[in-house]
Amino acid sequence: MAENSRPARPVVLGQNQYGKAENRVVKITRDGATHHIKDLNVSVALSGDMDDVHYSGSNAHVLPTDTTKNTVFAKAREHGIESAEQFGIHLARHFVTSQEVIHRARIRIEEYAWERIESSDANSKFIGADEVKHSFVRKGQETRLTEITYDGEQWQVISGLKDLTVLNSTNSEFWGYIKDKYTTLQEAYDRILATSVAAQWRFNWTDDEQKMPNWEKSYEQVRKHMLQAFAETYSLSLQQTLYQMGSRIINNRSEIDEVRFSLPNKHHFLVDLEPFGLKNDNEVYFAADRPYGLIEGTVVRDGCEARIPVDMTNL
Amino acid sequence: MAENSRPARPVVLGQNQYGKAENRVVKITRDGATHHIKDLNVSVALSGDMDDVHYSGSNAHVLPTDTTKNTVFAKAREHGIESAEQFGIHLARHFVTSQEVIHRARIRIEEYAWERIESSDANSKFIGADEVKHSFVRKGQETRLTEITYDGEQWQVISGLKDLTVLNSTNSEFWGYIKDKYTTLQEAYDRILATSVAAQWRFNWTDDEQKMPNWEKSYEQVRKHMLQAFAETYSLSLQQTLYQMGSRIINNRSEIDEVRFSLPNKHHFLVDLEPFGLKNDNEVYFAADRPYGLIEGTVVRDGCEARIPVDMTNL
Amino acid sequence: MAENSRPARPVVLGQNQYGKAENRVVKITRDGATHHIKDLNVSVALSGDMDDVHYSGSNAHVLPTDTTKNTVFAKAREHGIESAEQFGIHLARHFVTSQEVIHRARIRIEEYAWERIESSDANSKFIGADEVKHSFVRKGQETRLTEITYDGEQWQVISGLKDLTVLNSTNSEFWGYIKDKYTTLQEAYDRILATSVAAQWRFNWTDDEQKMPNWEKSYEQVRKHMLQAFAETYSLSLQQTLYQMGSRIINNRSEIDEVRFSLPNKHHFLVDLEPFGLKNDNEVYFAADRPYGLIEGTVVRDGCEARIPVDMTNL
Amino acid sequence: MAENSRPARPVVLGQNQYGKAENRVVKITRDGATHHIKDLNVSVALSGDMDDVHYSGSNAHVLPTDTTKNTVFAKAREHGIESAEQFGIHLARHFVTSQEVIHRARIRIEEYAWERIESSDANSKFIGADEVKHSFVRKGQETRLTEITYDGEQWQVISGLKDLTVLNSTNSEFWGYIKDKYTTLQEAYDRILATSVAAQWRFNWTDDEQKMPNWEKSYEQVRKHMLQAFAETYSLSLQQTLYQMGSRIINNRSEIDEVRFSLPNKHHFLVDLEPFGLKNDNEVYFAADRPYGLIEGTVVRDGCEARIPVDMTNL
Repeated sequence: MAENSRPARPVVLGQNQYGKAENRVVKITRDGATHHIKDLNVSVALSGDMDDVHYSGSNAHVLPTDTTKNTVFAKAREHGIESAEQFGIHLARHFVTSQEVIHRARIRIEEYAWERIESSDANSKFIGADEVKHSFVRKGQETRLTEITYDGEQWQVISGLKDLTVLNSTNSEFWGYIKDKYTTLQEAYDRILATSVAAQWRFNWTDDEQKMPNWEKSYEQVRKHMLQAFAETYSLSLQQTLYQMGSRIINNRSEIDEVRFSLPNKHHFLVDLEPFGLKNDNEVYFAADRPYGLIEGTVVRDGCEARIPVDMTNL
Repeated sequence: MAENSRPARPVVLGQNQYGKAENRVVKITRDGATHHIKDLNVSVALSGDMDDVHYSGSNAHVLPTDTTKNTVFAKAREHGIESAEQFGIHLARHFVTSQEVIHRARIRIEEYAWERIESSDANSKFIGADEVKHSFVRKGQETRLTEITYDGEQWQVISGLKDLTVLNSTNSEFWGYIKDKYTTLQEAYDRILATSVAAQWRFNWTDDEQKMPNWEKSYEQVRKHMLQAFAETYSLSLQQTLYQMGSRIINNRSEIDEVRFSLPNKHHFLVDLEPFGLKNDNEVYFAADRPYGLIEGTVVRDGCEARIPVDMTNL
Repeated sequence: MAENSRPARPVVLGQNQYGKAENRVVKITRDGATHHIKDLNVSVALSGDMDDVHYSGSNAHVLPTDTTKNTVFAKAREHGIESAEQFGIHLARHFVTSQEVIHRARIRIEEYAWERIESSDANSKFIGADEVKHSFVRKGQETRLTEITYDGEQWQVISGLKDLTVLNSTNSEFWGYIKDKYTTLQEAYDRILATSVAAQWRFNWTDDEQKMPNWEKSYEQVRKHMLQAFAETYSLSLQQTLYQMGSRIINNRSEIDEVRFSLPNKHHFLVDLEPFGLKNDNEVYFAADRPYGLIEGTVVRDGCEARIPVDMTNL
Repeated sequence: MAENSRPARPVVLGQNQYGKAENRVVKITRDGATHHIKDLNVSVALSGDMDDVHYSGSNAHVLPTDTTKNTVFAKAREHGIESAEQFGIHLARHFVTSQEVIHRARIRIEEYAWERIESSDANSKFIGADEVKHSFVRKGQETRLTEITYDGEQWQVISGLKDLTVLNSTNSEFWGYIKDKYTTLQEAYDRILATSVAAQWRFNWTDDEQKMPNWEKSYEQVRKHMLQAFAETYSLSLQQTLYQMGSRIINNRSEIDEVRFSLPNKHHFLVDLEPFGLKNDNEVYFAADRPYGLIEGTVVRDGCEARIPVDMTNL
C-alpha cells in the first residue's frame, strides 16, 4: 500500500522489527587433526516497509523468519565465522542489500567460549595430547556479546559481555554518604566488593571496510583492562570502580569511544557471630541474593556522543 | 566538585543511575477476618549530581541503596499499597522532593497476583469458607509491570505485563511472503499461533494528581482487550495480530496513547507422521524452544509521540 | 554377550537407563468448532539388556532415543491423550512389549494447564463467545506431574505437582523449640506461612487394566484437598501442616496410599520499622529467597509401604 | 509422645527431614596480603524423633532451621573451611552429637570455584601482581558437589559435579541399533558428541577419621580422569563413553568405589544446506535444546555395592 493511499487511522504503526531469534549455530573448522570451534547464538531483527503486514496481513514485503534462520546457517558455511562481529557484518549486509524492502538489519550474537581438554601424559597408556585435538570443555565464564546494526550506509558495532563475576576481598570502603530519616546502614572501612559485570562498548568504526578493528584482539584486551581496573582500584564506591573500568578501556583502546556498565552490587554481609561468642574479623560472609544495589553508568571519550541504550539488553 | 572547577578529562561521565533493585515487599491488609495481599518486587533507580562519586569516590551526594530499600518498606507501611502505580508515584515523589541532589527517580515494579483458596463445603467437618479468609494461592499467570519516572515536574507512567502465554489452535495462516534463495518454508493455511505476550503501554497522564487514571481498573481492561483481540483476530501474520491487539487497547482506553509488544512466535510444528503410516490432520504438534520468530512493534494513537524503548526491558 | 561369557572386569555396570527426555507434544482435538488442548512434556527412560553397549559400544540392543521420540508423537496420534497417566501407560506398555531386550520402561510427564479466553460480550462489534472456541491462555499455576513405571508385570503410578505457591497470612505460630547455643530465633505467635508445594502421591493400582482410577478426577480432588488442608490448618509448625495435607488426601482418596511433600518454608520476615518511628503490626514483610527452611516428609496409609524416593525429582 | 502411647492412626508418618537449605557462606582467609576464598552453598537436613511435631505440632524435639543456619556460619568461623567435604563432616558430627533427638544429619554442599585476576605488568603505571592478591574472578565452569551423611556411627561421602559441558567434534559414531516401525534416524559415522556432565562418586571411607582421603586432591584427579576419558574414547555410543569415564576413575582412584552419571546427549544436528547448493562436510551444526537423549548409568568396583540414587539430585 503506497504511503499516499494509506487511509487515515486513529492508531498508527511505530517502530517495528522482526526476525528469527536465538539461532544456535556451531561451526567446526578442521585444520588437519586440529579442530577449531565457534559456538554462537544469533538473533536477526529486520525493519523495512512493513505497514501492509500490520494493517492488512499482507506478507508481500515479509522475508519469513524461517528464511532468516536458514541464512544464518548458510552464511556460516559460505563465509565461515572469523569472529562474532565479522559474521554479524556479513549477515547484516546480506539482508539489507539483498531485499529492497528491508531498510535496516540488526544482528545480535552471544558467543560461548571453549577451551581444549588437556589430554593424558605422553607416557600414559592412553592416547596423548598430540592425538586429541578435537576435544573441548566449555569455559563457562562470561558470555561474549555483539550487536551489528546496518542501514545500508553506516555501521554501528557494540560489543560486550555479561555474567563475569568478580570479587575484591578488601580495598573497598563505603562511608560519607547522605543520612536521611530512613538511613540505618553503618559505614564500612573494609568490605567485600563483588559484582557480576555486564558491559557494552561501542566501536567508532562506521563505514570503511578496509579499516575494521581486529575484533578478536580487541575483545581480549578490553576484558583484560576491565578486570585489571577492577582489581587495582582502591574503591570508595562502586561508581568509582565503574568509572575506572570504563576510562581504562577508553584510554587503552582507540577503537572504542563509549562504554556502559550495569553492575549489581552483590552484597556479602559480614555475619554477626557475637551471639555465639565469636569474633568475625572479615572472615565469614553471607552472600545475599536480593535486593541488590544496582549501579549503572556510561563513560565516553571526551567529545563523543553516547548511543548505548540506558537499559542495556543482553544485546 | 563544581562544574566550573572540574579538570579536563579525556573520559567523561554520561547517563548514570543507582539504587536498590528487587525489593520484595509483601503487604497484608486486615479487614476484620478478611485479609488482602499485595506482592511486589520494587526497584529504585536515582539520578542526580553524581560526578564526584564517579571521579573521586566521594559519597557526599549519594543516598545509600540500603536507604532506598528501607524507604520502600517504610512507605509500604506509611501509605499502604493501593496499586503498583500509586505506590511507585509515592516513592518517586519522595526521592525527588526529599533530596536536592536527586534530580530524577525511576521506580519499576513487578506485581504477582494471588487468588483466594476456596475452602471446604459448609457441611464438611472442617472450617468453612466463612472462616478462612486469609489463605491464598499464587495465580501464576502473567507478571504485571509498571514503571514510574519523575523529574520533579512531569510524570511518565508505563505499565505492562510479561509471560502471558496464549494460543489459537486455528484461524491463523501464513503465505504470500518473499521467497529468496534461502527460503524453504512451506506456506501454511491453518496453523497454530502461539506467543508469550510481553507488552507495555504508556499513559497520557503527566501531572495533574487529581486526575489520575484508575490504575487497577485500567490494567484489568487492557488485559481483557488484549486477550480478546488475540482470540478474535483471524490472523494472516503475527504482525497483524499485534496491530489488532494494540489498536483495540488504544481505541477502548482513552488513558493510553502507546503500546509496544514483543511477541515471540512460539512455533508449534506439525509432526510428520507419514513415515509411520499415520495422517496428522492438525492434531499432533511439536512445541519448539529455539530458534523462535520474534515480532516487535509499537502502535500509537494518531498524533502522539512514541516513547517506549524499542528494547523493552522487564521494566 | 551372554552373562556366562562376560570377562571378569574390575569395574562392572550397575543400574542404567536411556531414552529421549523432554518431548514437547501438544495435541489438539477438534470437537466441531470447539477445540481441546493437551500440552505435555514427555520423558522416556528404558532399561534392559545393556551390558554390550557399555562395555564394547555395540548398539544391537539399543532402541535409538530418536525412535523413542518418534514413538511419543506417533502414539499421541494413534491413541490420543486422555490423561497424562493414561498416555504414559500406553507408552510404557508399548516399549516393554514391543522389544524383548527392553525390560522396564519409565515414562515421566509434565502437564501444563490451559484455560479458555473469554471472548467479547455478545453485543460487541467483534465475534462473540459462541464463535471463539479455539483460543487459550496458559493457566500458569502448578505443573502437573506423573511417572509410570512398568516391568512387564506390575505398574507403579506416582502422580504429583510442583510450583503451587500458597500463603496463609495468619493462623501460623512457631515456638517451644529446642534452644541451643546457636539459637537466636524469636518465638512467633502470628506469622505468615508460605510454601511452594512439591508433592507426589502413589496410586495403589498395579495391574488390573479394567479397574484404573479416573486419573483426571483424582488429580482435581487431590489438589482440592491439599489446598483446603493448607488453608484450614491452624499451624504450629510446617510439619504439622504437611501431615494434615497428606492425611486429608489419604483419608479422602482410596486410590492413593502414600504422599510425599517437599515444602520450602518461604520466609516472610516482618520488617523492623522502629528505626523510622513506625509500628509494623503484621503488615509489611520482606519475602526472602535464600536460605529457606526445607521440610520434607512422607505420609502413608497404615499398613502400606512407602516407595516414593526421599529425594523427589520433578518426576 | 512415647511410641507405646501413640494412638492408632489411619495415616502414619514415613521418612522425614528438615533443615535450612542453601546457606550461602563465603569464607575469606588472609595469609598476609594474599587472600584465599571458599564459596559454598550449604544445605542441612536433619532426621530424628519427629512424630510429635507432625501429629500435634509440638516443637519440643525440633531444632529451628534458623539455628541450623546460624550453625553453618559459626562453624565456618570456628573450624574454617578446609574443603567442602571436611566442612560437611564437621557440621554433620555437630548436629548428631549435640542433640539426642537428632539421629541423622545430611549436609549437601555446592562449591563455586574462583581464580585470581592477573594484574597489570610490573612496568605499568598501575599496581602490579605483587600487590593485588585479593582479587578474584569466578571460574564459572562446573559446580562442585558433596553430600555427607552421618548417623552417629558410619559416614557416607558422595562427591560430584554438575554442568561440566564437553564436546568431541569427531571420533563419535552411532549405528547398528534396533530399527522398529518408528525408527527414522540415519546411521552416523562421524558426529559431534556433546554432553553436560552430571556425575557423583562414592568414597569407600566410612569411619576412621585418621584415614580420610585428601578431598581436594581427589576432586582434581577425578575431574582430570573424567575429562581425559571423554576426550580419548573413540565412541560408538554415549553409553560406551560413560563406562569409560567411570572405569577410568575407579581404576585410578582407590578411594572411590562407585560412580553414577547423568549425561544428556546434547544433540548437534548437521544442517542440511543442499537446498542452498552448499555442501556441509561436518562443518555447520544446529545445537538443539529439547528433546535430548538422556543416558544414565552407574559403574561400580567389582564386589562393591551401588548406593548412589538412580535419580541423582544436585546433591
